[in-house]
Amino acid sequence: MERHFHEELKRLKGKLLQMGVLVEEAIEKAVRALLERNGSLAEEVFQDETAINQFEIAIDGEGHGLLALGQPMAVDLRLITMMLKINTDLERMGDHAVNIAERTQMLIEEPPLQMNIHLADMAKAAQSMVHDALDSFVNADVDTARNVLKRDDEVDAYNDGLYSQLTTIMEKDPSLTKTGLNLVMVGHNLERIADLANNIAEDVIYLKQGKEVRHRSEESELESNL
Amino acid sequence: MERHFHEELKRLKGKLLQMGVLVEEAIEKAVRALLERNGSLAEEVFQDETAINQFEIAIDGEGHGLLALGQPMAVDLRLITMMLKINTDLERMGDHAVNIAERTQMLIEEPPLQMNIHLADMAKAAQSMVHDALDSFVNADVDTARNVLKRDDEVDAYNDGLYSQLTTIMEKDPSLTKTGLNLVMVGHNLERIADLANNIAEDVIYLKQGKEVRHRSEESELESNL
Repeated sequence: MERHFHEELKRLKGKLLQMGVLVEEAIEKAVRALLERNGSLAEEVFQDETAINQFEIAIDGEGHGLLALGQPMAVDLRLITMMLKINTDLERMGDHAVNIAERTQMLIEEPPLQMNIHLADMAKAAQSMVHDALDSFVNADVDTARNVLKRDDEVDAYNDGLYSQLTTIMEKDPSLTKTGLNLVMVGHNLERIADLANNIAEDVIYLKQGKEVRHRSEESELESNL
Repeated sequence: MERHFHEELKRLKGKLLQMGVLVEEAIEKAVRALLERNGSLAEEVFQDETAINQFEIAIDGEGHGLLALGQPMAVDLRLITMMLKINTDLERMGDHAVNIAERTQMLIEEPPLQMNIHLADMAKAAQSMVHDALDSFVNADVDTARNVLKRDDEVDAYNDGLYSQLTTIMEKDPSLTKTGLNLVMVGHNLERIADLANNIAEDVIYLKQGKEVRHRSEESELESNL
């Protein structure tokens, strides 16, 4: 029974990683479709999302099955509920990839923006956070996870820069409003993908160190409210 | 032990509902601050968020405590993991309330938009979805939950309408770009709040009927990928 439980746990982890690879691919495709103005590549993201959603349902069911069957010890328990959470985070990354693909389809309808915006760099930063967050989970590697947390500010800064650059562009040439708005939403989706990578990294640290790193600045405030 | 477990479960549910009330209040304040251009009311939302985050950490810890301690039966197990999920959803609604409050602060810096946009109606629709989703959870009421799911399209339609109305406004008068962008982001945040209410309603239906209502249109596709 004990042995069976740990085999099942390993299998579930494997499935979650398979899903992670698929999510990374969907983001990669969405970003490439955007940068290359490639409509058929954007289409592929919608199919990826269907597969990602099916993974989510399967992993959710199997995770609950393990919780019910296994009467797991505290550490395994945390690992399972963490996997259920990562499952939700990955599914939402898939949604954001779809949003980027949808914006790409709208952007292709408009003439290209003849300006240098740092979207490719921002996408690269967000994608590497996702990759490293999943790596930190596979290897239970707190250093890699901490490194992911540090880079969230970088993506936020990219997004703030993009937002104000696009605001100026739209103010100067209102015929670029539609394009500007779509690119603002692409930036927002990339920033949310980075946030979700951040969530995964926080969970990895929590699992390993039993230490809460969410809402760091607010600890010990308002305890009396609880 | 059995009795103790169910008392703890009830206590946890009570705490989650307390958090739900606080989240509803934060959204209400953010929306009112926006509509009344009230900067100090917007400030209050930031304090509410701190309290909401503390609730999240406490509920997460206690939920895991119950899972570990109770060796719960399948139905209680689902209830606990569902509460952990609702906990995350509520915390994220709090984040969206904060985003609306931040946008409000930026909007107050600009002259008011002299135009009738349906933001108040949209906010009302999203808020009533949150309220009813929490109600459906308290009363394990599948009919109310199903009703929440139906109304998600209504909020999406409001958001699409708002988006295209604001696009036109910005195209016609580029001096309204900043205001338009901030209002687009407010609309986006309200739409996300409605989505999260939708998530809660889906979980209520799942718990009661053991039936998966997520990703409804995609069922039975791509099973072979799993």
